[in-house]
Amino acid sequence: MKIVETAHEMKLAAPVLASSSIEVRNEALRRVKTALLSESQRIFEANQKDLIAAEKNGVNSAVKKRLIFNEKKLEDVVAGIDGLIGLSDPIGKVLLDRILDDGLELKRISVPIGVIGVIFEARPDALVQISSLCVKSGNCAILKGGKETKETNRVLFQLIKNAVVAAGLPEGCLFQAEAHSEIDELLQCDQDVDLLIPRGSNAFVQYIMDHTRIPVMGHADGVCHTYIDRDCDLEQAVSIVTDAKTQYTAACNATETVLIDRCIAREILPLLQAAFQEAEVAVRGDQEILPLLEEYGFHFPEGMEPLMGEEDYHTEYLDKICSMKLVDGVEEAILHINRFGSHHTDAILTENQKTAERFMQMVDSAGVYHNCSTRFADGFRYGFGAEVGISTSKLHARGPVGLEGLVTYKYRLYGHGQKVGDYASGKSQFHFRDV
Amino acid sequence: MKIVETAHEMKLAAPVLASSSIEVRNEALRRVKTALLSESQRIFEANQKDLIAAEKNGVNSAVKKRLIFNEKKLEDVVAGIDGLIGLSDPIGKVLLDRILDDGLELKRISVPIGVIGVIFEARPDALVQISSLCVKSGNCAILKGGKETKETNRVLFQLIKNAVVAAGLPEGCLFQAEAHSEIDELLQCDQDVDLLIPRGSNAFVQYIMDHTRIPVMGHADGVCHTYIDRDCDLEQAVSIVTDAKTQYTAACNATETVLIDRCIAREILPLLQAAFQEAEVAVRGDQEILPLLEEYGFHFPEGMEPLMGEEDYHTEYLDKICSMKLVDGVEEAILHINRFGSHHTDAILTENQKTAERFMQMVDSAGVYHNCSTRFADGFRYGFGAEVGISTSKLHARGPVGLEGLVTYKYRLYGHGQKVGDYASGKSQFHFRDV
Repeated sequence: MKIVETAHEMKLAAPVLASSSIEVRNEALRRVKTALLSESQRIFEANQKDLIAAEKNGVNSAVKKRLIFNEKKLEDVVAGIDGLIGLSDPIGKVLLDRILDDGLELKRISVPIGVIGVIFEARPDALVQISSLCVKSGNCAILKGGKETKETNRVLFQLIKNAVVAAGLPEGCLFQAEAHSEIDELLQCDQDVDLLIPRGSNAFVQYIMDHTRIPVMGHADGVCHTYIDRDCDLEQAVSIVTDAKTQYTAACNATETVLIDRCIAREILPLLQAAFQEAEVAVRGDQEILPLLEEYGFHFPEGMEPLMGEEDYHTEYLDKICSMKLVDGVEEAILHINRFGSHHTDAILTENQKTAERFMQMVDSAGVYHNCSTRFADGFRYGFGAEVGISTSKLHARGPVGLEGLVTYKYRLYGHGQKVGDYASGKSQFHFRDV
Repeated sequence: MKIVETAHEMKLAAPVLASSSIEVRNEALRRVKTALLSESQRIFEANQKDLIAAEKNGVNSAVKKRLIFNEKKLEDVVAGIDGLIGLSDPIGKVLLDRILDDGLELKRISVPIGVIGVIFEARPDALVQISSLCVKSGNCAILKGGKETKETNRVLFQLIKNAVVAAGLPEGCLFQAEAHSEIDELLQCDQDVDLLIPRGSNAFVQYIMDHTRIPVMGHADGVCHTYIDRDCDLEQAVSIVTDAKTQYTAACNATETVLIDRCIAREILPLLQAAFQEAEVAVRGDQEILPLLEEYGFHFPEGMEPLMGEEDYHTEYLDKICSMKLVDGVEEAILHINRFGSHHTDAILTENQKTAERFMQMVDSAGVYHNCSTRFADGFRYGFGAEVGISTSKLHARGPVGLEGLVTYKYRLYGHGQKVGDYASGKSQFHFRDV
């Protein structure tokens, strides 16, 4: 069946899934967990095939590491499912309950978004996480994972799909796309697909955004900043910046640019140089800071110009490379971040509460942090159980997107024959009262 | 100054407006109200010029009626501003407050969307409503009204802008575009404009959606349904349907299609015919219902084929014309509405609670109504004070969009030196606790 037909059938199944009880959706998750545990050998064998193919195809070691699905990964995804089962039902929540007039009651109630298309990287645990989140939130999902894990994904998806259908959820609630060409088909399904969540490289996400009329949730860039203020705790600042830059460089929430308050440059730079040398971080900077970086013996990246022009501050390295810049205090830091950042996650390091509040207020990002690492921007670390992605859009979900980001609401109005004409003519008046 | 430059400067002013206190924003609204009242003669004189020009240009009477800005309209907008002043601050609300671990606190806080472009029809009261909503919600706005009210808009805008700046809000927080060519310029400002709200014809809204990368809030179609169930109160049903169809036919929330439970067709049709004859409503229908409509003496539209094919049920008339169809109970009504509707507002008329709940649950629209008129879908009637529009999008705001739809949130994380590495290594554990 073509994706467009699958999506159309899913659209019809969506209200059925949306009206399923939380008991059935939790039972589905329990069955998924049982299936994964009892069929673990089949999953591991499929994963071996993917790993052997990756070896043969010369897939690089960073990607290969993500392909692995072993006992440890299984434990993690099962713990994730247990966490999800424990969370309260995100749908059917009464967000507003207002009497408009005698016998005319308005309720705003959370409902699933409907049909979601998720295109994600080659990571088998991502498939389990995403499908579990969609089941719990009552959303139908079309899933397309990276081709490097196709054997593992096929087994995982079959186990998951069978488990949720056996629990009583509609047959058409989950679908796995396998061919790359199906992505372009999916982009055309704006009549039936309510939301796309692409995960992957900037270029890929931008391609999705440019080629569909379906709303897209996610982010193309993750240019995160850490600003070191004059009033910081120097030792703490060095330790946080090092974590933010190096704890996992390939993540979108890794710090890419370190802004340093000009008046403490000569205090912090030697400490930072020692930490960066140990962590093997190379640096780049503009005409002002570059001589200082040279003076203190920082390491520069290979095959890349250490001198940065202004526009270079938009760069997301996803590597052990860091843009450096001196700024004239918190105000210039705010201007720089709002201009060159990607509105993802930005941190200030300072012991001055007033300076911190100014930064937290004025920086226009999904996450603004005080005295901690930008790497905390993550659904699990926010206590959301899991995430389908991180959104830099300001509409609807912003930041890590878990269950709450997968629901919207609808208004229900309960009346007893009320007509607008009576209110327009003045025969009736509204008497608003929140319940 | 070009729109692109205006938008860029506005983007820089946005965090300043966002951090203004509610006292200053309410004071700005009070000053707007005072200015409108004390300068009412100037406004009325400008409005006279627009009315004379409309007369000269042969503008049709429905549009001319909307151009009028008189004492009554002034009273209405002033009452609207008073209502807005009375509402609580939509920004700075703590939506989530969670301790992640000792000394690591996460807050989700509502913030303005930022810079909003609103393109609206030739109605001077709309300009006052929209700019007041943006001021109260801390959003910068680029406003483009219909050219037929350009003299009135110019005076109104100048009064509003001067009043808010005098109250202490940033100079660049409001801008009025006057040339039609500036709309296309505005569509290009995706770096600086966070949201577009187009109001107007379907074709116009669709044009906007197809020609910009900026998120668009609103709706292209308003194909609303009223389903008359076998268990309805017949007299009440006729009265509600008539209101829903005729109270204001040009509105997006007017009912366009009436679905009738097949088994009560011969009971309700004669009653409906009498009501529609009095209200001068013409009808159309498919092969099944058309002979019945003829038999009961319904009136058919001039210059339009009374026989409808399946795809014709997507039609939005915005006139005293109504599509009619028989369905086999609530299940077929749900399928029809989810397929042919525009997910705006749909009603069921029945005394059977179980049937009603099934409809309210399964119809996938921003508003689902029981025993009342679809015309209630309106920000004022929902008690939102005013609205910038009605959204059929499922992401972010859905239904009438008032203050709450004009804010989003950001996550603030307050730490004491926490690094992700410590949590990844197991040295630290999260201890999630909602405050």
